[in-house]
Amino acid sequence: MKKVRTVEWKKGRVVMLDQRLLPNREVYRLYKDPTDVIAAIRDLVVRGAPAIGVAAAMGLALGAQKLPQDRFAKEFDKLCRAFAAARPTAVNLFWAIERMRTLVRENSRLSVETLRKMLEAEALAVYREDLDANRRLSEFGAELLPAKGTILTHCNAGGLATAGIGTALGVILAARDAGKKLSVFADETRPILQGARLTAWELKKARVPVTVITDNMAGYFMQQGKIDAVVVGTDRTAANGDVANKIGTYSVAVLAARHGIPFYVAAPTSSIDLNCPNGTKIPIEERSAEEVSHFHGKPIIPKGVKVANPAFDVTPAKLVTAIITENGVATGSYRRNLAKLVRASEPVTSTTSRSRKRGHAN
Amino acid sequence: MKKVRTVEWKKGRVVMLDQRLLPNREVYRLYKDPTDVIAAIRDLVVRGAPAIGVAAAMGLALGAQKLPQDRFAKEFDKLCRAFAAARPTAVNLFWAIERMRTLVRENSRLSVETLRKMLEAEALAVYREDLDANRRLSEFGAELLPAKGTILTHCNAGGLATAGIGTALGVILAARDAGKKLSVFADETRPILQGARLTAWELKKARVPVTVITDNMAGYFMQQGKIDAVVVGTDRTAANGDVANKIGTYSVAVLAARHGIPFYVAAPTSSIDLNCPNGTKIPIEERSAEEVSHFHGKPIIPKGVKVANPAFDVTPAKLVTAIITENGVATGSYRRNLAKLVRASEPVTSTTSRSRKRGHAN
Repeated sequence: MKKVRTVEWKKGRVVMLDQRLLPNREVYRLYKDPTDVIAAIRDLVVRGAPAIGVAAAMGLALGAQKLPQDRFAKEFDKLCRAFAAARPTAVNLFWAIERMRTLVRENSRLSVETLRKMLEAEALAVYREDLDANRRLSEFGAELLPAKGTILTHCNAGGLATAGIGTALGVILAARDAGKKLSVFADETRPILQGARLTAWELKKARVPVTVITDNMAGYFMQQGKIDAVVVGTDRTAANGDVANKIGTYSVAVLAARHGIPFYVAAPTSSIDLNCPNGTKIPIEERSAEEVSHFHGKPIIPKGVKVANPAFDVTPAKLVTAIITENGVATGSYRRNLAKLVRASEPVTSTTSRSRKRGHAN
Repeated sequence: MKKVRTVEWKKGRVVMLDQRLLPNREVYRLYKDPTDVIAAIRDLVVRGAPAIGVAAAMGLALGAQKLPQDRFAKEFDKLCRAFAAARPTAVNLFWAIERMRTLVRENSRLSVETLRKMLEAEALAVYREDLDANRRLSEFGAELLPAKGTILTHCNAGGLATAGIGTALGVILAARDAGKKLSVFADETRPILQGARLTAWELKKARVPVTVITDNMAGYFMQQGKIDAVVVGTDRTAANGDVANKIGTYSVAVLAARHGIPFYVAAPTSSIDLNCPNGTKIPIEERSAEEVSHFHGKPIIPKGVKVANPAFDVTPAKLVTAIITENGVATGSYRRNLAKLVRASEPVTSTTSRSRKRGHAN
């Protein structure tokens, strides 16, 4: 099923598909230096919360190879801080960094050579677990979708946003594979056009019928009765179920609620931040003005006119019909039910065996 | 106050600013042939419901000059039908054509030479009345805006959409001139970017602080408490107060209602269609796929992926706080109150003197 090689570990190097060039060019880049991986995260070579987490873990494993033996722990910590500064909203970045940092902290008595191997193994575990979480989350989510209908999605929460088949798009693909007759409306998702460029590209490859619309058309098609459900991803979901996701998700949620359309969030537990009590505490990244003011390098607004560019917004939990994780589906009281589902994945270090529970928490 | 020469009659010719090239280039085009005016309306050289009405009236006056004397009435009727086929949604087009057609029908005993002069005079009357309606509507609307705050607008309902200072932007400019401290958030308005390109250009010229946002950011800024009121124009408002306007207007109205933000529609009576009972009867133009799928001539979606491109949507009357006309402001029961305000402008032929009433109908 996995057709997109978003981020991979190859012979001690990181390889990433440059998503900025899609859909027109499919270019894979080889990274030998962790600072280039940081730049790639910042500049959107790789994006999507789970994929950012995997890239950071691999970037740290890459960096560990070169750090000096004599001050390894200190330098590794410095590198962790540099990765953490790349982007502020997606919690998977901090979650993945914390896994790597914890490994070094808890094994400080081991040799640097051993630590390097453990870090590489941990990065690969982050990758494989994401792939696995995608698959399980998608199966839980597939049950929620109608047997036939049109699903709206916003931004890209597909294979390109993860190590696996994706979260929101994974749900759609799993439902299709289970025999459901689905087509997709993809919001183009200004300013970076992840929907038009990436979601359309993935769904076309997967042979799912897809129609791209501008963001401001979603309400019209809901009003026309053309949308049966909404599925989106998340960059960080707070403990109370407030969902930070790509700018415009909140508007889609408000419109869905008005039309009685279910609004589902595909959230691997790695994107759920139990330390964040609610959405007001999620930092919202403000990106460069040029993303809005220029298109293909040319200005689209008069010189000297201001633009705003918040990259994310927060959808309050009360607008969310269900949150789909790899451990089951949360509805109702998110504070209690999300905690239950997240804890089913703990402890997170690869050195400990896991016990996972599956099912619905509601 | 009028700084933009959107559409003008000059020595028996039509001159229009090519709005497709704004804000980067300010090019005025001279039209000698009515079929070129039709193409200009269809291809968005001129856009905005009131401006389209003026362009059609002037285009018909231009055409009348060349039509053969012996079958003038019949050929004029044919030309009217050609203009009517240019675009389907904005009612001002049909309203202006009907004025011109009525003039010919009611004066069939006069010489063609006289009819040509009368048609030219009628086109100039349509122009002047729009200019006047803009001014009066703007003054009524200005009273509704807060003494201080930020106004959100969608698409362009400025001088570029009219013969005068605009409708929605006219309201904002009149409020500013009355001493109110206002700034504007302009939705960029995909796919054609009338907000980013045209509204920003006009407001910058008028020295009103303006920030361009992508369409999917409006909900975020409302949630942040940054928007105090919404003012938009309309391409056709039905007898019951349902408002057809640029795609995305409906989403803005839903968001405004959710946040308790007043949602005002600036609607010159020429854009109110009392023959249209409600919004479901307003034809919605589907424009070419390339408007969505290409940007600066380059594709932004994978080859072979479908797009949709409805150019307008309908905001139900219940989401509209007030409809501002040149004859006063309608609130409450729109069916009764809009009829009252529209009839205050009748009869519409220039051969009859008018009696206009002003005030609030609610």
